[in-house]
Amino acid sequence: MDLKCKNVIDLRREFHQIPEPGWLEFQTTVKIIDYLKDSGFDLKYGKKIHGSQRMGLPTAEESQKYKDSLNLTADYDLSEILQGYTGVVATFDTKREGPTIALRFDIDALFIEESGEADHLPQKEGFRSKNKSAMHACGHDGHISIGLNFAKWIMENKDRLKGKYTLIFQPAEEGVRGAKSMVEAGVVDGVDYLLAGHIGLGSGQGVLSVGSQGFFATTKMDIYFEGVPAHAAANPEHGRNALLAAASCALNLYTLTQFSAGMSRLNVGILRAGSSRNIIANHAMMQIETRGENQEVNEMLMERVQKVIEGTALSFDVDYRVELAGGAPSYTIKDPDFIQAVSTALSERGFTTKSNNKLGGSEDVTYMMNEVENNGGKAIHFMFGTQIKGQPHHYKYDFGEEVLDFATRALAETALYLSDL
Amino acid sequence: MDLKCKNVIDLRREFHQIPEPGWLEFQTTVKIIDYLKDSGFDLKYGKKIHGSQRMGLPTAEESQKYKDSLNLTADYDLSEILQGYTGVVATFDTKREGPTIALRFDIDALFIEESGEADHLPQKEGFRSKNKSAMHACGHDGHISIGLNFAKWIMENKDRLKGKYTLIFQPAEEGVRGAKSMVEAGVVDGVDYLLAGHIGLGSGQGVLSVGSQGFFATTKMDIYFEGVPAHAAANPEHGRNALLAAASCALNLYTLTQFSAGMSRLNVGILRAGSSRNIIANHAMMQIETRGENQEVNEMLMERVQKVIEGTALSFDVDYRVELAGGAPSYTIKDPDFIQAVSTALSERGFTTKSNNKLGGSEDVTYMMNEVENNGGKAIHFMFGTQIKGQPHHYKYDFGEEVLDFATRALAETALYLSDL
Amino acid sequence: MDLKCKNVIDLRREFHQIPEPGWLEFQTTVKIIDYLKDSGFDLKYGKKIHGSQRMGLPTAEESQKYKDSLNLTADYDLSEILQGYTGVVATFDTKREGPTIALRFDIDALFIEESGEADHLPQKEGFRSKNKSAMHACGHDGHISIGLNFAKWIMENKDRLKGKYTLIFQPAEEGVRGAKSMVEAGVVDGVDYLLAGHIGLGSGQGVLSVGSQGFFATTKMDIYFEGVPAHAAANPEHGRNALLAAASCALNLYTLTQFSAGMSRLNVGILRAGSSRNIIANHAMMQIETRGENQEVNEMLMERVQKVIEGTALSFDVDYRVELAGGAPSYTIKDPDFIQAVSTALSERGFTTKSNNKLGGSEDVTYMMNEVENNGGKAIHFMFGTQIKGQPHHYKYDFGEEVLDFATRALAETALYLSDL
Amino acid sequence: MDLKCKNVIDLRREFHQIPEPGWLEFQTTVKIIDYLKDSGFDLKYGKKIHGSQRMGLPTAEESQKYKDSLNLTADYDLSEILQGYTGVVATFDTKREGPTIALRFDIDALFIEESGEADHLPQKEGFRSKNKSAMHACGHDGHISIGLNFAKWIMENKDRLKGKYTLIFQPAEEGVRGAKSMVEAGVVDGVDYLLAGHIGLGSGQGVLSVGSQGFFATTKMDIYFEGVPAHAAANPEHGRNALLAAASCALNLYTLTQFSAGMSRLNVGILRAGSSRNIIANHAMMQIETRGENQEVNEMLMERVQKVIEGTALSFDVDYRVELAGGAPSYTIKDPDFIQAVSTALSERGFTTKSNNKLGGSEDVTYMMNEVENNGGKAIHFMFGTQIKGQPHHYKYDFGEEVLDFATRALAETALYLSDL
Repeated sequence: MDLKCKNVIDLRREFHQIPEPGWLEFQTTVKIIDYLKDSGFDLKYGKKIHGSQRMGLPTAEESQKYKDSLNLTADYDLSEILQGYTGVVATFDTKREGPTIALRFDIDALFIEESGEADHLPQKEGFRSKNKSAMHACGHDGHISIGLNFAKWIMENKDRLKGKYTLIFQPAEEGVRGAKSMVEAGVVDGVDYLLAGHIGLGSGQGVLSVGSQGFFATTKMDIYFEGVPAHAAANPEHGRNALLAAASCALNLYTLTQFSAGMSRLNVGILRAGSSRNIIANHAMMQIETRGENQEVNEMLMERVQKVIEGTALSFDVDYRVELAGGAPSYTIKDPDFIQAVSTALSERGFTTKSNNKLGGSEDVTYMMNEVENNGGKAIHFMFGTQIKGQPHHYKYDFGEEVLDFATRALAETALYLSDL
Repeated sequence: MDLKCKNVIDLRREFHQIPEPGWLEFQTTVKIIDYLKDSGFDLKYGKKIHGSQRMGLPTAEESQKYKDSLNLTADYDLSEILQGYTGVVATFDTKREGPTIALRFDIDALFIEESGEADHLPQKEGFRSKNKSAMHACGHDGHISIGLNFAKWIMENKDRLKGKYTLIFQPAEEGVRGAKSMVEAGVVDGVDYLLAGHIGLGSGQGVLSVGSQGFFATTKMDIYFEGVPAHAAANPEHGRNALLAAASCALNLYTLTQFSAGMSRLNVGILRAGSSRNIIANHAMMQIETRGENQEVNEMLMERVQKVIEGTALSFDVDYRVELAGGAPSYTIKDPDFIQAVSTALSERGFTTKSNNKLGGSEDVTYMMNEVENNGGKAIHFMFGTQIKGQPHHYKYDFGEEVLDFATRALAETALYLSDL
Repeated sequence: MDLKCKNVIDLRREFHQIPEPGWLEFQTTVKIIDYLKDSGFDLKYGKKIHGSQRMGLPTAEESQKYKDSLNLTADYDLSEILQGYTGVVATFDTKREGPTIALRFDIDALFIEESGEADHLPQKEGFRSKNKSAMHACGHDGHISIGLNFAKWIMENKDRLKGKYTLIFQPAEEGVRGAKSMVEAGVVDGVDYLLAGHIGLGSGQGVLSVGSQGFFATTKMDIYFEGVPAHAAANPEHGRNALLAAASCALNLYTLTQFSAGMSRLNVGILRAGSSRNIIANHAMMQIETRGENQEVNEMLMERVQKVIEGTALSFDVDYRVELAGGAPSYTIKDPDFIQAVSTALSERGFTTKSNNKLGGSEDVTYMMNEVENNGGKAIHFMFGTQIKGQPHHYKYDFGEEVLDFATRALAETALYLSDL
Repeated sequence: MDLKCKNVIDLRREFHQIPEPGWLEFQTTVKIIDYLKDSGFDLKYGKKIHGSQRMGLPTAEESQKYKDSLNLTADYDLSEILQGYTGVVATFDTKREGPTIALRFDIDALFIEESGEADHLPQKEGFRSKNKSAMHACGHDGHISIGLNFAKWIMENKDRLKGKYTLIFQPAEEGVRGAKSMVEAGVVDGVDYLLAGHIGLGSGQGVLSVGSQGFFATTKMDIYFEGVPAHAAANPEHGRNALLAAASCALNLYTLTQFSAGMSRLNVGILRAGSSRNIIANHAMMQIETRGENQEVNEMLMERVQKVIEGTALSFDVDYRVELAGGAPSYTIKDPDFIQAVSTALSERGFTTKSNNKLGGSEDVTYMMNEVENNGGKAIHFMFGTQIKGQPHHYKYDFGEEVLDFATRALAETALYLSDL
């Protein structure tokens, strides 16, 4: 596969057809490797780019079933990738003095069935998802193609570039699961500048937002209550009601969200309990998340959450188990002058820029941004403005494909500016 | 198919292999018809034996899907049966003066996957369920075969029998869904004596319990809350949380069960809510049931339940919908002397009898028993004692097959006794 | 004070004017002693008639304040009585062979302000309560006067009576608090027959109910949650919300009442929490009670209650404390033949009798009844039928005073019958 | 009473001894009138300074009882004041052209028993509260004396002052109850500049904070649930449980506080329910408050609160009643340049100033500030820095009395500056 001949829109449409949810990005990873392997990049993948904390993994059965459906082969070792060590880190050293600039692109899709309606562009133009149970409904297909397009730009400009470039293709951003283990594995060690960004998110078409704010710290947890079943009429007292425990737990959790240090969020997104109308429910499961405007708030909230879970289990005489399913720290711009300078530079290079954009959600690139800045580097998160159709995570989500080139150019100009600092 | 040559144990094993849950008893109904159609019985099925209140129907999709998997044909019209008007009513008129005696046999199975373990008799002897998603785990396969065996006994003794016999093969007893619409359709009109019974249920092997008590009145309901989804971090206030409504509703429902007029029961057996961790849940569903030692208690409880559902919807600003999924009245023995007389008669005919057996659950045959008694007839519910393996509704449930002949004889002797009163 | 000249109605009206709630029966105790001290009875009071488990004591302040308001003096030591060791046990030994017959009379009043309306007999006839905060609104003034009238009967018939008589004037029956410590102190040791009873309670005027049933086992508890206060706007996270803990606890407690072994009851009768609208509440108090148709049910319920309290405290990160405030066992008639024989004997002596009367509540005389029967004796609880005005515990409660003589005679005839067995 | 000879500290100590909670400021109002009536001010009081919306009034009984305890007389009509139309508005017209400057001073105390400990200055110096049930524990005694001291300054400088001065002595600030009805009555109509402030609140000694921020919008409500009582054992089903309704309501209310538009607060500060352990509680009362970082958030929250109250009443089949007990809007500085200019001017006049002070609570002077600004005027809220002992609302609260003169001078200098604009 030759990246050189590939248009960024074609790339996007290619990846759009093979959406793969977090830790299952098997084809996606292989395709990225294949595009980059003969391009002068040093490639790392599998266990080399992950630590021990891959959060929110699919079950072994799900993973195996999907793997079996693919029948992937390659002339390099796929085994680690197929165990869920997905993603790629591609490094290019210009051999000229200069900073190490890392760029992060997230690559996973969502468990959503894509629209087949005629007015949905991917359907109309024939590049709708081929995987019935998944869809790129948050623009990560765009992010991958911007990453590859940026790689192409490096190749084309390698004679005039300085320093080192690291392209991080990160799995499992949805549910904020993938960044932590990559940071653990050291993928941003030694990075001077980290660039990241997201298509859309409120910036108007053609507007480049420089320096996003308002990343909530977040924790994702799965809670299991295990009781004792009993016939609800004949001997209800033999039961230990896991459904009732979950119901009480859910209610009590929502009472915990008032903090003076900043806003917090708590959501019990999913509750599943019981198996039969006339049996005291012995199983219950909840998928919850907490958030805080800052780390402190999320941590205080999590402490209270733990107590409520434990206390509820005691109240209803059931067992409980909590599994960490994801998480990301908050992020605050530490050097507003730097952000301002980058913004000004990009303005001067013809971009319509905007600052102080609030994300109002969470993104695990904050693990990388904080890590880089804690080590003395700097980080910027962009929003690449474009027209969005459907909300993110909607089955008719789509974006204006002009943003792909726009984003590549913005990143390239930023890189050039930073190289000259 | 010739009933005459059929052993009751073979019959049971035949039906055991084709378990069909309530309102899906397509093969079962056809097989019963086929066994009886040339035996002198007058057969009714389809809409003729059902009123408008078939409760707790499967969804149209489930029903269609199952129907498609079968490819059933017959030389009579199957269309109503395949629309879920399942069950058969078979009448035999001896043309000799005597009472009308009805016998009720329930025919449905459960959504349970049957054990394939070597020590499970149906597996060992090769008559395990052929339907992976269903199992006769409450002995109704036995009940069908007793019914057919009883039909055979009528055929064999038709020259000496008196009065009229009505064999009611009732669908959808599980979840107490099927009896009501049959009563509405008049299947027990004009009945002088109604005989019903259940294999096992606490009576020891070879013991015949005459006159069961302690049927709880019960109502089964499915509750749906419909809210508004929203991103849990970005704009939680746009959401209307159906999960939280369900949780609060469940808790509040369980507070309602204290009544001086008798014991009551309430169970929320299943709660399913939400679709994604980071979305305010907009759907929630609960399967609940109420019970009362007597009708009055169940009705008072249901009134309170309705208020809690409505009030909860208002509290959380969500819509709600309640679907009646089943129900049965309580039953009290009205003429203990009659029961005693039958018991004594059966004793004299060699049966080990027992009385005052508490069911401690619900059974919708009570609709038929109350109807018959309200019209001046009499009803008896038996328990046919045998050794049970596994609890009812357990994936390794099994019973001693000697009970099939025992139950047939008990019913036959009872019928003979009643004919001579 | 000379009992001989006292009419039972005058006695009742005298005690009606000095109602004293449980453990505060200071004047009442002294008056009973004064009436009996020169009558040949052996009197015991103070610590001699109480063990260590006096439940549900008033606070030291309440007790002291009431004591100070009275200025009681006597020529015997009042100190223990004034510490709340109230009640009297009066024994008379006929010195003739015969059984030991104990009779129990409860002596406490309620914290209710008595009606001053013209149609309320005590007001009209000038014997309304002189204590504004208390009232004999459950007939215990009648019980005391029946006890003293019975004592008078003993005196008048001492030359023909056999065996020993023990009159137990028990404090603190309301809230089932007083009997336990008297049993501990041995007041019913060696008793062959225990007679107890209550005025009214559903028996019609002139009807004597022999052998009451349906005493619920019960436990009374005060629950305290102790949190941390905080300004609700400025720093809510510093608070630990005792009010929320109590609210969640109350709700969860009410979910616990379904048992196959019999009916149960749970009530949170009082909840008091918080001190200011804008402060996270750091104190909460609940007065609760549990009941069971039998001991087993109440015990299972109490175990679950304990878990909910403990679990709730953990959930909301507050401290808790549980104080036992009262309790009584259930009581079942163990020897129906004995009850029947007594009933027949009383019938023959001219009483209109009735049996199988359900109390539908709790009474701590059950401690004494069970103790006597466990030691081989027998117990009977009567209901002395009369017309009641107002419900028990109502501020206009009153009863027909003819019942006082009726009850005395019934107890006397029973005693005579038992002495001759 | 001659204001001229009165030291501001003496004034403060005089008012400190007669603390009167909101709408009961009878002596306080009379004393303010008496101090000002011969000083050239035009005085208004009673119904002239209040509209119809006096929120959170004490009960008629409380009010009458307090009134009776005072025996107040005067040579002017006290009747409206003694009906709770407390407070005074004093206007002085210099007759020289210039702006109308209003100053607001709150005058109410709290239901707190003041410390009698030796290290508490008011005790040591002999000016502790003479009203056992109330205390000036939030510095409003200081505010009154600053107001009177300011009046004295006007008198002393009347020949050089310009424009008009309005001194507003507002009742019932605690619980944010008093400002609304004064605004309704037009007390700030025509005001060009409104000055308000508070002693202490985090500003260090000698520091003048100019332009406070972070006033939460707030609503205070009393919620009543009215059910049906019943004996908890004998006939629980006759009861309608107001305690359970309140418990469920409290829990559900706390789940409502997540909003993207800003922080919110909700507190159920007081819950009182039930009257007896063994009776289903038929009364329940809750004192709650909501807050929002801005008006919008508080309003969205209040809408949800209303639904939960109504829905809960429906769920538990009880009646409900909601009484508005207080409220205040949020306040945002609209003209930061103006605040900055004032701050600079005060700096130049020798004050150590500070800006951007967050209140983190609510204050109903915001009704007046918003009203003035909506009519084209300007408003400033100061914090007069001093050392505080004990927290506000603590029984040992005290402040450094040097602040009284400091605050008077700050307000005077501000007035002079504004007059010259």
